Amino acid sequence: MMDEPTIQPVSGTAVPRYAGPSTFVRLPELRDLDRCDVAILGIPFDSGVSYRPGARFGPSAIRQASRMLRPQFHPIHEMEPFALLQGADAGDVACNPFDIMESIVQIERGVDEVLERASSIVSIGGDHTVLLPILRSMHRAHGPVALVHFDAHLDTWDTYFGAAYTHGTPFRRAWEEGLLLEDRATHVGIRGPLFSPGDLVDDARFGFEIVSAMDVLDEGRQAVADRIRHRLGDAPVYVSIDIDVLDPAFAPGTGTPEAGGLTSREILGILRGLAGVNLVGADIVEVAPPYDHAEVTTVAASHVAYELLALFAKKA
Amino acid sequence: MMDEPTIQPVSGTAVPRYAGPSTFVRLPELRDLDRCDVAILGIPFDSGVSYRPGARFGPSAIRQASRMLRPQFHPIHEMEPFALLQGADAGDVACNPFDIMESIVQIERGVDEVLERASSIVSIGGDHTVLLPILRSMHRAHGPVALVHFDAHLDTWDTYFGAAYTHGTPFRRAWEEGLLLEDRATHVGIRGPLFSPGDLVDDARFGFEIVSAMDVLDEGRQAVADRIRHRLGDAPVYVSIDIDVLDPAFAPGTGTPEAGGLTSREILGILRGLAGVNLVGADIVEVAPPYDHAEVTTVAASHVAYELLALFAKKA
Amino acid sequence: MMDEPTIQPVSGTAVPRYAGPSTFVRLPELRDLDRCDVAILGIPFDSGVSYRPGARFGPSAIRQASRMLRPQFHPIHEMEPFALLQGADAGDVACNPFDIMESIVQIERGVDEVLERASSIVSIGGDHTVLLPILRSMHRAHGPVALVHFDAHLDTWDTYFGAAYTHGTPFRRAWEEGLLLEDRATHVGIRGPLFSPGDLVDDARFGFEIVSAMDVLDEGRQAVADRIRHRLGDAPVYVSIDIDVLDPAFAPGTGTPEAGGLTSREILGILRGLAGVNLVGADIVEVAPPYDHAEVTTVAASHVAYELLALFAKKA
Amino acid sequence: MMDEPTIQPVSGTAVPRYAGPSTFVRLPELRDLDRCDVAILGIPFDSGVSYRPGARFGPSAIRQASRMLRPQFHPIHEMEPFALLQGADAGDVACNPFDIMESIVQIERGVDEVLERASSIVSIGGDHTVLLPILRSMHRAHGPVALVHFDAHLDTWDTYFGAAYTHGTPFRRAWEEGLLLEDRATHVGIRGPLFSPGDLVDDARFGFEIVSAMDVLDEGRQAVADRIRHRLGDAPVYVSIDIDVLDPAFAPGTGTPEAGGLTSREILGILRGLAGVNLVGADIVEVAPPYDHAEVTTVAASHVAYELLALFAKKA
Amino acid sequence: MMDEPTIQPVSGTAVPRYAGPSTFVRLPELRDLDRCDVAILGIPFDSGVSYRPGARFGPSAIRQASRMLRPQFHPIHEMEPFALLQGADAGDVACNPFDIMESIVQIERGVDEVLERASSIVSIGGDHTVLLPILRSMHRAHGPVALVHFDAHLDTWDTYFGAAYTHGTPFRRAWEEGLLLEDRATHVGIRGPLFSPGDLVDDARFGFEIVSAMDVLDEGRQAVADRIRHRLGDAPVYVSIDIDVLDPAFAPGTGTPEAGGLTSREILGILRGLAGVNLVGADIVEVAPPYDHAEVTTVAASHVAYELLALFAKKA
Amino acid sequence: MMDEPTIQPVSGTAVPRYAGPSTFVRLPELRDLDRCDVAILGIPFDSGVSYRPGARFGPSAIRQASRMLRPQFHPIHEMEPFALLQGADAGDVACNPFDIMESIVQIERGVDEVLERASSIVSIGGDHTVLLPILRSMHRAHGPVALVHFDAHLDTWDTYFGAAYTHGTPFRRAWEEGLLLEDRATHVGIRGPLFSPGDLVDDARFGFEIVSAMDVLDEGRQAVADRIRHRLGDAPVYVSIDIDVLDPAFAPGTGTPEAGGLTSREILGILRGLAGVNLVGADIVEVAPPYDHAEVTTVAASHVAYELLALFAKKA
Repeated sequence: MMDEPTIQPVSGTAVPRYAGPSTFVRLPELRDLDRCDVAILGIPFDSGVSYRPGARFGPSAIRQASRMLRPQFHPIHEMEPFALLQGADAGDVACNPFDIMESIVQIERGVDEVLERASSIVSIGGDHTVLLPILRSMHRAHGPVALVHFDAHLDTWDTYFGAAYTHGTPFRRAWEEGLLLEDRATHVGIRGPLFSPGDLVDDARFGFEIVSAMDVLDEGRQAVADRIRHRLGDAPVYVSIDIDVLDPAFAPGTGTPEAGGLTSREILGILRGLAGVNLVGADIVEVAPPYDHAEVTTVAASHVAYELLALFAKKA
Repeated sequence: MMDEPTIQPVSGTAVPRYAGPSTFVRLPELRDLDRCDVAILGIPFDSGVSYRPGARFGPSAIRQASRMLRPQFHPIHEMEPFALLQGADAGDVACNPFDIMESIVQIERGVDEVLERASSIVSIGGDHTVLLPILRSMHRAHGPVALVHFDAHLDTWDTYFGAAYTHGTPFRRAWEEGLLLEDRATHVGIRGPLFSPGDLVDDARFGFEIVSAMDVLDEGRQAVADRIRHRLGDAPVYVSIDIDVLDPAFAPGTGTPEAGGLTSREILGILRGLAGVNLVGADIVEVAPPYDHAEVTTVAASHVAYELLALFAKKA
Repeated sequence: MMDEPTIQPVSGTAVPRYAGPSTFVRLPELRDLDRCDVAILGIPFDSGVSYRPGARFGPSAIRQASRMLRPQFHPIHEMEPFALLQGADAGDVACNPFDIMESIVQIERGVDEVLERASSIVSIGGDHTVLLPILRSMHRAHGPVALVHFDAHLDTWDTYFGAAYTHGTPFRRAWEEGLLLEDRATHVGIRGPLFSPGDLVDDARFGFEIVSAMDVLDEGRQAVADRIRHRLGDAPVYVSIDIDVLDPAFAPGTGTPEAGGLTSREILGILRGLAGVNLVGADIVEVAPPYDHAEVTTVAASHVAYELLALFAKKA
Repeated sequence: MMDEPTIQPVSGTAVPRYAGPSTFVRLPELRDLDRCDVAILGIPFDSGVSYRPGARFGPSAIRQASRMLRPQFHPIHEMEPFALLQGADAGDVACNPFDIMESIVQIERGVDEVLERASSIVSIGGDHTVLLPILRSMHRAHGPVALVHFDAHLDTWDTYFGAAYTHGTPFRRAWEEGLLLEDRATHVGIRGPLFSPGDLVDDARFGFEIVSAMDVLDEGRQAVADRIRHRLGDAPVYVSIDIDVLDPAFAPGTGTPEAGGLTSREILGILRGLAGVNLVGADIVEVAPPYDHAEVTTVAASHVAYELLALFAKKA
Repeated sequence: MMDEPTIQPVSGTAVPRYAGPSTFVRLPELRDLDRCDVAILGIPFDSGVSYRPGARFGPSAIRQASRMLRPQFHPIHEMEPFALLQGADAGDVACNPFDIMESIVQIERGVDEVLERASSIVSIGGDHTVLLPILRSMHRAHGPVALVHFDAHLDTWDTYFGAAYTHGTPFRRAWEEGLLLEDRATHVGIRGPLFSPGDLVDDARFGFEIVSAMDVLDEGRQAVADRIRHRLGDAPVYVSIDIDVLDPAFAPGTGTPEAGGLTSREILGILRGLAGVNLVGADIVEVAPPYDHAEVTTVAASHVAYELLALFAKKA
Repeated sequence: MMDEPTIQPVSGTAVPRYAGPSTFVRLPELRDLDRCDVAILGIPFDSGVSYRPGARFGPSAIRQASRMLRPQFHPIHEMEPFALLQGADAGDVACNPFDIMESIVQIERGVDEVLERASSIVSIGGDHTVLLPILRSMHRAHGPVALVHFDAHLDTWDTYFGAAYTHGTPFRRAWEEGLLLEDRATHVGIRGPLFSPGDLVDDARFGFEIVSAMDVLDEGRQAVADRIRHRLGDAPVYVSIDIDVLDPAFAPGTGTPEAGGLTSREILGILRGLAGVNLVGADIVEVAPPYDHAEVTTVAASHVAYELLALFAKKA
């Protein structure tokens, strides 16, 4: 937490929101600061996708949509997040679109470098492949983490066309590498048919609990937030959000949409219900702008990223 | 209320709905009648917007989408609205896109002129700037009104780039001008972060009550309708609907979309729950067709406008 | 039910889902099998529509979107549907776009021919006109059926421009022809204004019960499923789904969208709640791809079609 | 030609072009005049299409795009067309989407009725099926006509699925009915492969000459205009324009697009080169708005319709 | 011209083009340099438009599309423009969307400030209103300029709804203020009908010559470039490009599209034919991203802006 | 060449073109034939792209658009291509999206397998990476080939992020591997700036000649076809077409669009001008459907693929 006043996002009352810096919510760039509390880091990588690519354009599109937010005051948490913590945009990791393994190394290094000058990171993807190198870097700083995973899919497959490192496998790899705390992980929003009954068996074996998309409808946002919090306890928490947790109506701009998903109001409600957990890192991934319309997806994604930043401020 | 049989909208069983007049639900034009009970008035003006313009095309696009409605019978209220009241389309106000202040005068005069031949008006915007001149005209006819305001945003800001009259300020100006009844106004659907904590303080000072979008999810449409009615009492009521009260999934075609909004079913349900209030005027604004897709937004907007007309008939 | 192992859909772990056969969920073609348990049959016909045409492209677009499903395991019903029953894609009925009456004959013959080699059919439309010839064919095999009809509209009109056979009339014609069981039919998702109060009177006279879209919001998916099941009893059941039962946000790609509709989660939930009914046939119609965006509608439709197939497997 | 001053289109300097009447170039409505020189008549009919439907929405979309034109002065012909002739919008023919034969009768009657009060008609379709009843009506007024036919396709097929009256057959039917002058007809813009070599043989037998799309590139707009004029002589001329004569880049919003088409500059250039011919009627058809983007197609179509009107004025 | 090696745009071989800085062709930011030869300046202003707004999003969208360019080597001019001159992105002018007159002052001041540190400016708009303050600033530095104006429209109207300063009037105002050299100005690409015959008379009176869009087709790009050069002589030259000079097929994303325009190949060819003229300033305006598709317009606009930069380098 | 009558594409007069098989122009499937003269082979692979991915959906989208063609008679070449040669659709190669090197092996094997039963192949991509394995397979059958390469880009780069095998390098690799005849290769349609002057030097060193997009405008389609033919002589010829050779107006659905490209009429004209060359193989690549609109790109691509097939028939 900074002692001096923070450098806040450019105000929409001084510079029209469609003008000025292209950073996330028009925050200062990390290169212009000594250090910051939370950095936004773009990871434009989508070579790990199994269906519709395009998430490589996610970071720039989410930043563009974030212009519309007025980030100064969060009326639910009743606080000014960027007065409580210094936010900054750390730009993009440059990674190789032609080599998944090299990119994973590049991303891990990129996250490490930012963490030298930022206490925490909210990553904007990019496909879910980017999670593994982030969690590796997180592990060095915080040890194994409790996980909240919003997604339509489990992402705990083993290999796909022989490839062990894709957007369908990061949580299995993370579990194998000991990056996750035992019995503290929750999938939220899961739905849709599966390749095999073994998918669920494996997933349970890794200690994940599933809150399905239908559960969210049946139980309500508050009960779901309570279930998640209960599992998290006071462990260090990492939140990973695949935008396809939302129904395609709310997030058409993604690579493997599934009918029957959450509304944007539900995910915002659940995230607000997590206020106070010991958040150490977060991401929002799988935003594929070529499939978006009128910024429907990126407005949702940028609001979700803002709520993640607010959780850091809430904890501050 | 007319004594003779009304001239009803052109029936879709006689002329295919994609053919024939381009008036709202294919009502007669006001210019062809002596007078009417409720007139639809287009106000194609969007020079007051702070982010995505385009609402100047709202009136023609809402009329086009309204072709799809079969307006003859309202099955929930169990009545034939255009048998109970004579509806008409009064065309568009011609206002100056290059001068907000002149346009406000032109709109007020345009509304006045229609009110000489119509008992009530449902305006279709246009951006929310158009509300102030409407309310001024309303005030002359009905005195101060109780307000129901559906919107993602408060629209009670003071100035923006020094401009006192924009789409973000009409309710503050209306309050200052004494156009609103004290403690009878409700915002419904509010959400999203704010420029400053003072926004809420000011708003409360003007006597508005907030029913947030999350409240609608948590409390349900019936409870929300009851809360609103309770505040309205039997005062003359004005209903102003910014289409961005809906989630961007339901209304992508708008200028300042906010994640986490209402569904179209919720707003229709709440409006039906207001049956019997003493409605004196209404509008639906901020429909920006360039951002719409497949008429998703304009179908919702035209249905909402139809429900507003039905509220007049219900009262009749 | 087959004794030998079934030929399953091509696995997405062997051939990428965007490659390989273009059949529904990449099932084998019926022409390559002796017979099957359930056949998918495309009926590309939209000459019966009253507003936006385009559903003639529905079958190919739904098949394309169905590539994304991983159909092997249904996690809610906990079964492998295509191990329990042999599925197949029977291709398209070729029918005459310039002659509704001839097409109805062609469709009936096409369904008959498939039923010679398939125990059941799930049809993918095409506009709702296609229902009548399907029900005629069904009637020969099963006698009159209990009906579950998901739709925004009643589709029990009499004539339209003098035409007795269009997408607005199939259920009245079916009732007149004795194809439906008395007092066993339910409309789900009805909403929107009507041409005349007589529409509801007629509909009730035919013995339909209405569960409106607002009822689904107010009562919840489980209660609605129970109401429907109660009416069905153990009669042979036919399920007809007009995609416009979904709100335009969830299904923009349709011909007569109505605001205030169901979410995709609700329809999937209701369908799962029908597990165990004596299903004998089903369809999904009115998907108009020219109005779709990013496969939002066709992903929902293909998931719905998959749930219909699962209901057959559940019964198996 | 009128003796008194004409009632001109509403000026864009008095009423913003996105406001005001929705008639073609904001002309007066024919119902408000005694008679006029040239009437615009919408024919929203697309039940005769063989591939992508949607042209039923053509008339309203072309009118909407025509708002953008400033129709007062034609700088190439150096004249004020609506000072030279009284233009008017005659609205739409209401025809039955479920019955091609009945619609053809309705269209012929609709054209006849307008011709009672208008010297000439420019029709906006609708699919090319509408041509036959127009030509029948023309024939009564003018006898057989010389034809200029802009199209990617010959439209001289015989039957299609047994149907003799579709959008692929009007010119053969017109020839059979003696509505066309011998050896005066020219197809312009023809391209693409054919169902059979007999198509060209038949077409030549009817006395059509073909100026292919490639000829237009190779010979230039002036030479093509000269070739056409040479064939026309001083006969009464009918010009029929299928918007798919343009390349899909210039007219995506059509039902059977063909690569390799004309540019919009070429068609405007050729039309201007026809100034002075004895034009008696014209149409622009096959505009299918569901496939359009940003009004690219309808802006071109409305400009083409304006050039047709200018040819009448030029002759005046 | 710089003595030291320039700081070049980020190479696409080091950082993927979809990643990294969001400046025009990923040039350095002016704020990080002492000064530069040519600065790109965004002017996000569209309150002067008469039809479709949206150009306020032009600067960010053109920068985004410019990522795709590989700006290092220009193969026609056979040079490395950013080795010959130091380019930089100066960000956006913040101007008031609610007040045209104030914005004109803000833009002029913004241009002045950049010119203190940049020898020349290429502005990216924004609507054509922005031209007048740019030319005022230019005039202080260079005196009156010879003008090359690519546009579908003359933009020499007088007032519009009483407003003297809009996107339809800048060249008349500039002429009145003495900002233009007599008889050196050329409009290229003019087409479409006009409000009045007086439009052409006035325009000629100001000493403009017109090369119509049809002239470009008839005469070819080389002859047109020669005509323009001939008029320019060795005067200081300003090039203003309204993207609607292109046909809507090539530039759907603009506010007042006109059929019959130039191809992108033609404008690039003409601009290359101007190599060697004494260019002192340039702009590209009227790019309205809400109407664009797949970056068709912004790719063209960013290429055009690059060619303008190359003309500065060519002169260097 | 077959002795017996061929199995022709399904006729659009028997089965509506939007119905029936989803093969290219509704040809029979190769799996149902013993062998064929020319096979269409889909290669859904896009992991080699440097900017916008999506070409993995190219094969299915091109097949869908090809439904619209009436392939029976080619009016320019005056022949029935599928009577002269037996065409067939060989389906898709299944290749690994996560491993470029493995995919190249899989594609080469896939092409080899098809060539066992087909005399020639027209491949539909997929990105340009797929060319190298095709040319390797070609080389085994025909030795080194003369090349006609339509593209905006040279595709003779060396490495990109260290990767030697991407969509930017296939022609260099092919040249290094001796797959191309010396001094017989031509690039057509080249345009746009470059990473370095060395790009052109290298390219010339490999013996390629460049016909730029501007040359096509300046010289005309016939002269260009003649230049190409002159270089080809009677060598075995391979034609590779990157759809981005077309201007983005004609082909928005591609990954690295460049302004200033060819029209679809030009490429069809040039291809027809190659009739009689000794064609041994061909492809059409880089069609990225997520960026397409209304099938503009895929209609062009399917027509181009048809012209390639016609060249085989012409040679037959």
